[in-house]
Amino acid sequence: RIKASGLKLRFCTNETQATRENFVKKLQGLGFDVSVAEVTAPAPAACSILKERGLRPHLLVHDDLVPEFAEIDQTNPNCVVLGDAAENFTYANLNEAFRVLIGMEKPVLISLGKGRYYKETDGLKLDVGAYMKALEYACDVQAEVVGKPAKRFFESALAEMGVPPEQAIMIGDDIVNDVGGAQRCGMRALQVRTGKYRPSDENHPEVKPDAYVNNLAEAVDIILRQL
Amino acid sequence: RIKASGLKLRFCTNETQATRENFVKKLQGLGFDVSVAEVTAPAPAACSILKERGLRPHLLVHDDLVPEFAEIDQTNPNCVVLGDAAENFTYANLNEAFRVLIGMEKPVLISLGKGRYYKETDGLKLDVGAYMKALEYACDVQAEVVGKPAKRFFESALAEMGVPPEQAIMIGDDIVNDVGGAQRCGMRALQVRTGKYRPSDENHPEVKPDAYVNNLAEAVDIILRQL
Repeated sequence: RIKASGLKLRFCTNETQATRENFVKKLQGLGFDVSVAEVTAPAPAACSILKERGLRPHLLVHDDLVPEFAEIDQTNPNCVVLGDAAENFTYANLNEAFRVLIGMEKPVLISLGKGRYYKETDGLKLDVGAYMKALEYACDVQAEVVGKPAKRFFESALAEMGVPPEQAIMIGDDIVNDVGGAQRCGMRALQVRTGKYRPSDENHPEVKPDAYVNNLAEAVDIILRQL
Repeated sequence: RIKASGLKLRFCTNETQATRENFVKKLQGLGFDVSVAEVTAPAPAACSILKERGLRPHLLVHDDLVPEFAEIDQTNPNCVVLGDAAENFTYANLNEAFRVLIGMEKPVLISLGKGRYYKETDGLKLDVGAYMKALEYACDVQAEVVGKPAKRFFESALAEMGVPPEQAIMIGDDIVNDVGGAQRCGMRALQVRTGKYRPSDENHPEVKPDAYVNNLAEAVDIILRQL
């Protein structure tokens, strides 16, 4: 309905356990009309940064994300790219990433998100942010975070649409990473009361959405009504 | 020579990959006259805290350290004790420790040290402090650190000897954990120019030892000369 109305649309995700291709297949399976070209995700955003700065990454990411880095030179690494590696977060792999970092004169750590944890069917799991903190502490370095809530991440989505922030609306369920990040970019932000939403979000000490909606369909209704 | 002179002596270690029994065997093998009763180590210090506060730990520690906790009730855990677990730092074990913590109303995380990394024959390894930071971030909690440089740790060594801090001298190779920790307790501290010592330590921005010695034998010479 958004697309049919002529409005521009972009999907911003922090998904780093799958390529955009697989992410889009999943959304299509759920009935969403979405293509790979409409997705802004941390891995391709990181690839832009790597190319721009001539960085050759040592990857500590999920196996399913590796194809996103196919075109990036990974010989003789001069930075570490950290994603939600899940089962790849082994003691050996963490030590290896650490050794690459500590061996640099000025360690460069790029983290695809900084989430604390997330829920899967078999329970809560530590997210990439926890491992980022471990490497930051061990190497006395601050990671560069790619993905929500990074300002640059939202800005690249806006640039891809060719829309200035004040003419854009973000719809998301995460009070800090979605709503806070978008607002810091100058966008308005709706929080949906589904998914990650918790009633306590409505008393968040720092972030207040421009409005709440009960679900995605209601957000679409409200936006189309304003046209 | 120190013992023969009548001075009181205590060995303070952050070793958490072995019981005191095995640690002492190793030192005896190197020719040191030392017994288990003379060793202050993080695991027994943590056991005192656990007993004192009625805490039942979920342990994420090295297999060889587990016997130190033999007398501690570990059913229905209400805290997590983290040591340098080495190969036990698996993705599954870290998630499990995290779930125990996040399931508590007020998570209690006790960390046996907060080292960043250390060197083994097969290369650098992330130390317990890195994993402590990961869990701290994920659970939004601050760990209680047992072991050097914690003030309480040095104080318990002093109490065990029955010596006030101003009558004690610490000899160690680590500028922050040994020298800094001991001085914050009111003890004087000698840094040996062996082991972890690096020439850059002599320009440390925060810690300055009361004196340097080239090795342990020289420290003993100097101390005995003052008697």
